[in-house]
Amino acid sequence: MNSVQDKNIIHESLHWRVILMPDQTYLGRSVVVLKRKCGDLAEVTHEEILDFMDSVVIRLENAFRVAFGATMFNWTCLMNNAYLEEIPDPQVHWHFRPRYRKPVEFEGELFSDQNFGHHYELDVEKLISKELREEIVKKVQLHL
Amino acid sequence: MNSVQDKNIIHESLHWRVILMPDQTYLGRSVVVLKRKCGDLAEVTHEEILDFMDSVVIRLENAFRVAFGATMFNWTCLMNNAYLEEIPDPQVHWHFRPRYRKPVEFEGELFSDQNFGHHYELDVEKLISKELREEIVKKVQLHL
Repeated sequence: MNSVQDKNIIHESLHWRVILMPDQTYLGRSVVVLKRKCGDLAEVTHEEILDFMDSVVIRLENAFRVAFGATMFNWTCLMNNAYLEEIPDPQVHWHFRPRYRKPVEFEGELFSDQNFGHHYELDVEKLISKELREEIVKKVQLHL
Repeated sequence: MNSVQDKNIIHESLHWRVILMPDQTYLGRSVVVLKRKCGDLAEVTHEEILDFMDSVVIRLENAFRVAFGATMFNWTCLMNNAYLEEIPDPQVHWHFRPRYRKPVEFEGELFSDQNFGHHYELDVEKLISKELREEIVKKVQLHL
């Protein structure tokens, strides 16, 4: 993992790594990847899921509420893309999308959750600069 | 809860209730509702999440693999709609969508996962008869 990627790591717990995504349609959108090789939610251990709840869900939700005023959160465990391969090699990860009742301005950029109260949109993308992405990481880390 | 709804309950664990949905675009699509009043995934207790993993995720995934040949599974915890209300009253629940590499025929009805390997579709709906819904419940219950 190179240094550019390192700067997008928001948080690491014992079993999970949280990475801020390039698409920030939903401010704070991240993936939470299980560090151990494991391809099915049903095979996540008790220790791993309790670490996910205590050290990821609780801490991330709180940090995004305090840092950016997030209203609520969407959590999804999908892993569809791995199954496009002939021999699928899925890895357990969660998609985390904070959702916002009100628009948020941060570092001069406006983040507006256009479909708050509804399913997240699939076909939109808001790519932000590397610098802004790093500023989001820094700000949320103050509240983890 | 009336008797029609009762027949759509696939499974109950100590803390969760699994209900087969009217929309069966993805054969087996269900919601898994926490029995205790609780509006945020971050507030789900250790006991409740371990019950979810052991008595819902493992058992449902296995049952749909055996009963219908499901390939993999999408799990989402969203709760967006509750936030359309002025005073939101969310209740923790999961959406469960089995996904299928190959079409499945059951009781003369064809279930075809048109976008396997990709995000589930948002704007499609496959409503099936009450009778067929009950047959799906009965078949999967044989393998729980």
